Amino acid sequence: MDSLTPATSSQKEALLRRYGASGLPAAGPWNEAIAAMLDHRSVRGYKPDPVPPGTLETMVAAAQSAATSSNMQWTSVIAVSDPAKKKVLAEIAGNQKHIEQCPLYLCWVADMTRNAVISAEQKVDFETMPWLETFMVACIDVALAAQNAVVAAESIGLRTVYIGAMRNDPERVAALLGLPKQSFVVFGLCVGYATAEAAGEVKPRLPQSIVVHHDAYDGDAKAAERKAYDGEMATFAARHEMQASTWTQRVLNRLGPLKSMNGRERMRVALKTLGFEVR
Amino acid sequence: MDSLTPATSSQKEALLRRYGASGLPAAGPWNEAIAAMLDHRSVRGYKPDPVPPGTLETMVAAAQSAATSSNMQWTSVIAVSDPAKKKVLAEIAGNQKHIEQCPLYLCWVADMTRNAVISAEQKVDFETMPWLETFMVACIDVALAAQNAVVAAESIGLRTVYIGAMRNDPERVAALLGLPKQSFVVFGLCVGYATAEAAGEVKPRLPQSIVVHHDAYDGDAKAAERKAYDGEMATFAARHEMQASTWTQRVLNRLGPLKSMNGRERMRVALKTLGFEVR
Repeated sequence: MDSLTPATSSQKEALLRRYGASGLPAAGPWNEAIAAMLDHRSVRGYKPDPVPPGTLETMVAAAQSAATSSNMQWTSVIAVSDPAKKKVLAEIAGNQKHIEQCPLYLCWVADMTRNAVISAEQKVDFETMPWLETFMVACIDVALAAQNAVVAAESIGLRTVYIGAMRNDPERVAALLGLPKQSFVVFGLCVGYATAEAAGEVKPRLPQSIVVHHDAYDGDAKAAERKAYDGEMATFAARHEMQASTWTQRVLNRLGPLKSMNGRERMRVALKTLGFEVR
Repeated sequence: MDSLTPATSSQKEALLRRYGASGLPAAGPWNEAIAAMLDHRSVRGYKPDPVPPGTLETMVAAAQSAATSSNMQWTSVIAVSDPAKKKVLAEIAGNQKHIEQCPLYLCWVADMTRNAVISAEQKVDFETMPWLETFMVACIDVALAAQNAVVAAESIGLRTVYIGAMRNDPERVAALLGLPKQSFVVFGLCVGYATAEAAGEVKPRLPQSIVVHHDAYDGDAKAAERKAYDGEMATFAARHEMQASTWTQRVLNRLGPLKSMNGRERMRVALKTLGFEVR
């Protein structure tokens, strides 16, 4: 589109890496912050070098600056540096060695305890606590906060990877970190400098024509666009020796068999044990 | 701490605005991207000026660059510009006029339909779909994506506010936007330029001493720190004619009575109607 900001070559390269030639979107506003976000890749190998002094403080300040529903601030962060604890967390996550390796490992907690304490102190029953909606809001709050922290870290040259596999065994994680009732580790986050081997590259995503809708959901399955994306992912997978070659195949592998959940179909039971009713 | 990057005056001011003098954290790494995040405030009044050309494309590129669990890409975005639809959405949200006012209104969708289509096409049963864990992952994916979009928008001088109140009536929102089964608007987002009256200011957050833990959850209720924060919020509230004066009071008002949920205790029923089992 002529009316758009002309793409600089670095912007065009960034969009090409993210979407491939087949899915290139129009070039809009651009700056260093946006370029850093576009350059995200999840990194699973870290140098032993420590993060710069004050990194945790800056990441948390960014995290707390994200929107939080009604200013309830459901997020807590546990920075885990004890090697013995990191080892157990890596095991729980199916032997993800980068949890032990990374210089900064953060567990992001949906912390409904802090508010429950106020309920107890003030002797006011909190009728809103046991509902699915409230639990969802807490998880969303945590995700918004963590993502700001990720953007802050990556803007200073650090790399990250979220560790959803903390949810493989929520009770064991909670016990290890001494969580009180009504707190729950939503995910972990490795932070550090990527090793050369693990630096990776930007993974292509679905074209915007599939993801963006106008005024109403476009029900067209967009077979041609999806096929083109399968092609982009197959090329990417071939370069990275990934098992599934196309996105379609990856979706089938990941969402088809129950065993791919690594026991996380227990989530409701686990949450109940941890003090969340999720009614 | 002496070992930390010396704070520039603008960094110190930004941290003061976010935490107040009582909760000032150590000054860590800093740059424009981080400064923009620290300067976030939710804005509820917008000029009619359109957003720059290509803003939607850049926001979505940033959104899609966020981590997504197993690359499942659960997020869809519906850009709503039809004034009649915006009017209804504003009503659903309890007459939030900024939904009608803002030049760009985005509904962020947990889109499990896209993957369900693959299940149907390939005649493979997706055993992982009906579980709470899978639903949580989709919501978290959407939140990570949306937050990147927010950071991108705010980095170019736009302002935003999340509209959780799309969940006041999920079925009506879904019908209005023609969502298929297994898609659900997690929240809306207003984007545009703030009016002078609505520009607002940075809202103080809990001190990091309450939010950050090391190796284990610190169960200390930190009464003194919380009281100091109540003081910061009381000062802020007095400047902004907010009803609740302290954070403690706001928590009591928001989490105590069921009626403050605006009917969202129905979420499980609503989701079931929309094709989510959340087992």
